[in-house]
Amino acid sequence: MAEIERVAVAVLIIGDEILSGRTQDTNLNFIAKYLGTFGIDVAEVRVVGDLKDEIIAALNALRSRYDYVITTGGIGPTHDDITADCVAEAFGVELYEHPEIIEMMTARWQGEINAARRRMARIPEGGSLVRNPVQGPPGFQIGNVFVLAGVPMIMRGMMEDVGPRMRPGAVVIARTVRVEGIGESVMALPLETVAKAHPDLSLGSYPFFGQDGFGSNLVVRGRVEDEVLSTVEELVGALEGLGAKAITRVEP
Amino acid sequence: MAEIERVAVAVLIIGDEILSGRTQDTNLNFIAKYLGTFGIDVAEVRVVGDLKDEIIAALNALRSRYDYVITTGGIGPTHDDITADCVAEAFGVELYEHPEIIEMMTARWQGEINAARRRMARIPEGGSLVRNPVQGPPGFQIGNVFVLAGVPMIMRGMMEDVGPRMRPGAVVIARTVRVEGIGESVMALPLETVAKAHPDLSLGSYPFFGQDGFGSNLVVRGRVEDEVLSTVEELVGALEGLGAKAITRVEP
Repeated sequence: MAEIERVAVAVLIIGDEILSGRTQDTNLNFIAKYLGTFGIDVAEVRVVGDLKDEIIAALNALRSRYDYVITTGGIGPTHDDITADCVAEAFGVELYEHPEIIEMMTARWQGEINAARRRMARIPEGGSLVRNPVQGPPGFQIGNVFVLAGVPMIMRGMMEDVGPRMRPGAVVIARTVRVEGIGESVMALPLETVAKAHPDLSLGSYPFFGQDGFGSNLVVRGRVEDEVLSTVEELVGALEGLGAKAITRVEP
Repeated sequence: MAEIERVAVAVLIIGDEILSGRTQDTNLNFIAKYLGTFGIDVAEVRVVGDLKDEIIAALNALRSRYDYVITTGGIGPTHDDITADCVAEAFGVELYEHPEIIEMMTARWQGEINAARRRMARIPEGGSLVRNPVQGPPGFQIGNVFVLAGVPMIMRGMMEDVGPRMRPGAVVIARTVRVEGIGESVMALPLETVAKAHPDLSLGSYPFFGQDGFGSNLVVRGRVEDEVLSTVEELVGALEGLGAKAITRVEP
């Protein structure tokens, strides 16, 4: 059996608007699902405000610890967009105006490139561009850090150029056993017994309560399909006789 | 003028399901808005998986740095619910079964309290209960840390008992100037000039693009109403003559 390798990514969400509640972040959820298709795990997330010291400290903590870091937000033209400056400072390099971005801007705005737009043309020395298929200037990569826009539509487009640049991992297979009519506390012991027998799998319980009844979705996650599938059967067996109204294997 | 004090909270979101993308977190956004009404800022957020060492390290980093920490998730009855254990370990105390919770459970389940349910009755020595008006056992507070459920409906209910326990800050007043028909890069310089003249205000630019046009919402945030309102006028003045189709003061 090939060795099962984990590739771990941290996401650093930058922006006062997320912390104040003005904006509901949806970027993390997209990034997590998208990278999942490459077998890459989001292992940690931090959200920090538009503050230089905070951004640099978080970036340095995360990039030294995880295979990759993705930042979102703070790369626009206004004074509160300081991500590029912070990333350059974290890496101890200077920003420079990338000729390709200046060229794109010149083509688009017929030579009218003011100072604010020029801010968006800056990337750190040693960095490379991350394609932006949607609108506006590109993101960039430096070392193991990918710097993306915060606007979801643009961030999603940029991710198409990020996923393939990362070392892929073994894809996680997840299967759900939906148990209706009994509470989590009734299934906790059999769930734990099965979980302990498979330490390299992750078994989670996600309860639901609604007009149609209550119960829990038990999710088995792992990187070896046979083990996930046989563990689902083991779990279903262990849950029998507990009085559930229904035990359903949910296809993904 | 009274001193304007900032009260800063960190949110620690615990759960593999958020990191994997299975679940879209909405708790942060609720907490941020809710605490905003008490003048309390969310200053940093971390999301970690159901891993003991990660939870303890993040909790200790955050509780030593911020006025308060709120955790969400990991307080259910199953083996992957380890938040209470981690919080106790972070504080160097033991968990014990709280008699009031045992009493509530006994009343509800007529004495049938299995081991999984008893797990949910444990709180750290020196902790106090956080009322759960929705369903299931309470959360708890120890020191400056509030430990809440992850299920949004339950977390929201618990927050009603958290906000009033925190020292209130000066409420942030936010006013938005909506500018249509010019891009962020055109408004960047006047925005920066106004921002630099008011270092204790936060001025952010949140661009929009849609079928109805494009532009940016410029948000002025501060704790002194007069200053926020006069800065809005200063900003509107600075934006005149840039070719905007419309400049609108958006009432909150």
